[in-house]
Amino acid sequence: MSGHHYSLAELAELLNVTYVGDAKTLISGLATLASAGPGQLSFLANSKYQKTLKSTLAGAVIVAPDMVTSCPSHCLVSEQPYLTYARASQLFEVLDNDRGGIHPSAVIDSSATIATTATIAANVVIGKNVVIGAAVVIGPGCVIGNNSTIDEGGLLHANVSVYHGVLIGRSVVIHSGTVIGSDGFGFAPSPDTEIGGWVKIAQLGGVKIGDNVEIGAGCTIDRGALDDTVIGDRVILDNQIQIAHNVEIGDNTGIAGCSAIAGSTKIGKNCTIAGGVAIIGHLTIGDNVHFTARSLITKSVEKSGAYSSGAPMQDTKSWRRNAVRFMQLDNIAKRLSDVERKLK
Amino acid sequence: MSGHHYSLAELAELLNVTYVGDAKTLISGLATLASAGPGQLSFLANSKYQKTLKSTLAGAVIVAPDMVTSCPSHCLVSEQPYLTYARASQLFEVLDNDRGGIHPSAVIDSSATIATTATIAANVVIGKNVVIGAAVVIGPGCVIGNNSTIDEGGLLHANVSVYHGVLIGRSVVIHSGTVIGSDGFGFAPSPDTEIGGWVKIAQLGGVKIGDNVEIGAGCTIDRGALDDTVIGDRVILDNQIQIAHNVEIGDNTGIAGCSAIAGSTKIGKNCTIAGGVAIIGHLTIGDNVHFTARSLITKSVEKSGAYSSGAPMQDTKSWRRNAVRFMQLDNIAKRLSDVERKLK
Amino acid sequence: MSGHHYSLAELAELLNVTYVGDAKTLISGLATLASAGPGQLSFLANSKYQKTLKSTLAGAVIVAPDMVTSCPSHCLVSEQPYLTYARASQLFEVLDNDRGGIHPSAVIDSSATIATTATIAANVVIGKNVVIGAAVVIGPGCVIGNNSTIDEGGLLHANVSVYHGVLIGRSVVIHSGTVIGSDGFGFAPSPDTEIGGWVKIAQLGGVKIGDNVEIGAGCTIDRGALDDTVIGDRVILDNQIQIAHNVEIGDNTGIAGCSAIAGSTKIGKNCTIAGGVAIIGHLTIGDNVHFTARSLITKSVEKSGAYSSGAPMQDTKSWRRNAVRFMQLDNIAKRLSDVERKLK
Repeated sequence: MSGHHYSLAELAELLNVTYVGDAKTLISGLATLASAGPGQLSFLANSKYQKTLKSTLAGAVIVAPDMVTSCPSHCLVSEQPYLTYARASQLFEVLDNDRGGIHPSAVIDSSATIATTATIAANVVIGKNVVIGAAVVIGPGCVIGNNSTIDEGGLLHANVSVYHGVLIGRSVVIHSGTVIGSDGFGFAPSPDTEIGGWVKIAQLGGVKIGDNVEIGAGCTIDRGALDDTVIGDRVILDNQIQIAHNVEIGDNTGIAGCSAIAGSTKIGKNCTIAGGVAIIGHLTIGDNVHFTARSLITKSVEKSGAYSSGAPMQDTKSWRRNAVRFMQLDNIAKRLSDVERKLK
Repeated sequence: MSGHHYSLAELAELLNVTYVGDAKTLISGLATLASAGPGQLSFLANSKYQKTLKSTLAGAVIVAPDMVTSCPSHCLVSEQPYLTYARASQLFEVLDNDRGGIHPSAVIDSSATIATTATIAANVVIGKNVVIGAAVVIGPGCVIGNNSTIDEGGLLHANVSVYHGVLIGRSVVIHSGTVIGSDGFGFAPSPDTEIGGWVKIAQLGGVKIGDNVEIGAGCTIDRGALDDTVIGDRVILDNQIQIAHNVEIGDNTGIAGCSAIAGSTKIGKNCTIAGGVAIIGHLTIGDNVHFTARSLITKSVEKSGAYSSGAPMQDTKSWRRNAVRFMQLDNIAKRLSDVERKLK
Repeated sequence: MSGHHYSLAELAELLNVTYVGDAKTLISGLATLASAGPGQLSFLANSKYQKTLKSTLAGAVIVAPDMVTSCPSHCLVSEQPYLTYARASQLFEVLDNDRGGIHPSAVIDSSATIATTATIAANVVIGKNVVIGAAVVIGPGCVIGNNSTIDEGGLLHANVSVYHGVLIGRSVVIHSGTVIGSDGFGFAPSPDTEIGGWVKIAQLGGVKIGDNVEIGAGCTIDRGALDDTVIGDRVILDNQIQIAHNVEIGDNTGIAGCSAIAGSTKIGKNCTIAGGVAIIGHLTIGDNVHFTARSLITKSVEKSGAYSSGAPMQDTKSWRRNAVRFMQLDNIAKRLSDVERKLK
């Protein structure tokens, strides 16, 4: 697997930044400040790594303008080093997926429309009336249900399951094990039938995913009950995220791993939801809202800002003593009011 | 894809309810009150949508008897509008799965017994002595391990993994990415061996799933250590649920997304467990118990009723101030007692 | 499926323990004290089951030396009955996986190296330059990406997805639905581009998994951004665990189901992390640390010991009253200080 290499000047041009140092310095990879060698590019995006900068052996480092004089190596100078690093990382990526053609083991319904530039890997199964756009790559073992569409530039890694009636926009990346379009969890209790239990509500809606979305591994996104579940443009989802039926997520919102959004909740644009957050159903969350890790969101939030829930971590012995008191809190508050009354 | 359509009178008969209005009104789909058009049926199950009822363009609406006069369209009149909607939804479902036959790409051991009315999709792998019942549908990419049985009427969506020795009852639905019969997390610590670490306890039990169960996408249900893990009849599980080894779940219990039940815990009948609940191991939960969202259940619960845990959501600034005080709670309680003593 | 059987004396020798009773007693399986019959072996590892010991019908029981006289059956006598039970369980396991050979439906790149003793099941897809070691078993539907290695003795159950550039050590077991090597969740915010949103950081690192590791079902382990994500030797992971990019987990650490470790966090050796724990990113956790169920770990922990977070479970009515007071905690603490001042 041969990688990419660029001169310092080429990198500066490709990344639309300036450079300081030898234009011809050859760079053949990216590494952290601590581990980079002479042929590698690194970056300083967080001031707490300034010490490491001084001792780096990197061939070049992406730095902010005020760091150029502190940099022992050649520099790429950017107002936004982290963003420049992100762009540089794409230049050094060696694409794993073979491109082009339909593997003979793929099982594709004759009514499906597959762009000639699409890649369909081994053991893929594609249903009726499916449309696969230009330059789409479908990894091994993926299953695409009837009447679903994957627009141009999409990339599905191995073993993704897409049900019927799912519309996926342009340049969407979906990681392995993820399931799109499974039935929403809709059941009506039926105490009066012979057997008791639950009557299933057929999930007649679909899923609509915007453009430039990335969905991590092991996620589940349910189809809508009547209307569609909707994921906006440029949404990014980490791994093991659960999106229930009829959820709507606004453009540019990012959600970290293991978060879950219950049914019919609407989330605005440009929100950042940390890992392990759960949002209960039928809520409305505005734009530019941030939830910290592991919060349980039980009320709608209109106003932008940060929200949290939970009780903090301690050593278990201390925690036990305090947790027991949590169960007396209402009593404590009332006793305090009594004390205050007596002192008046 | 042509859908189903019914006259108002036909629907009333199929749903075992009465109707008010033009018997011949043609209904070809279901939609919410807000989005339904003249050829569609809607429903009013929650009084907070009464305003929407007045302006709906639906051809017909499922309503409770006291709502008939407020309904601007034809009506289906039901004592339980939500339950009637559930049943109606099934009438309008267009089944995605092709039915009938064994796809030539399926790999089926010669010792397996496949009912002639079963459907085995592309790239399915079926092991030794497996029994697949009448009218079962196994979706693309599913793997069924040796000596497992799927009784009549079952539906496994794409890419479900069933290990060996798993017994699945009648009319069970399992969504994509779900794993049934993986090893329970059983290891004995072995401080005295050369390498340290853990000695695996072979998981010799199986999994037994009752009739009319539905299991969502991305769930994991482990096999038992010695006895079986047991899921009762008519249990409904949402997505990304983890059921550890030797758990037993009683009939009719429903569990929402991302909940987890640790090893050997027994849960009663007719329980409703909200999303993100975790129940630790070796507990016993009685019948008709309800756990609210994200609760951590650390003790057995005999008595029916609702139980909760956790600390509530606030803006992060307020939350931080309060969370710090949580760590002083025991101290606060003791100081309050001192104050009370002084005031006596 | 014929199982294994042993005489009592054979078992004692295989398990390196002594026996009390008839050497020729034939044992053909393992069962709990409550359900074991005359031909079965059971064990007593927890004193709370002493009562059950008295009435067991087991043919033999693994007991500690001080329990021999209380044991109604033949005995295997061990200082560590639970560890001996773990070892015995392996003697009675009937291996489900067929061993030997490459199924004709597997799709294997011609550049891959497959040991002659390896087993490649149906519908497996293996990429370029992959190396599969001696006696490795790859279950049906697994996909192994380019340039990945699975060392000798590994076992991948059905439908595991391994991306490119993943190095898996010797005797590693991976359960179904698990994904290794998916992209870490790395995006740089780009407020200044035309469309807004996120710029993806290509994940150029890999994943390195040690020897004798077991990974449960439905887990996700992301590849590193620049360096590798690293799982030490003899680590055990339960189901639905999320390991983010550049996490490092020390040898012998065990993590129970549904836990999640955020990016770049380093965890020491011999830690035990209970179910549902979340650890935020960029932390350092020392050796021999224990986190109790559902803890959220927000700070580095150097010192070995047990740590917890959260607020305890109550009936919902009581919990609501106390939870409301949590939001007044800072106010309560200040009012208490006022009261104390007045009383001085």
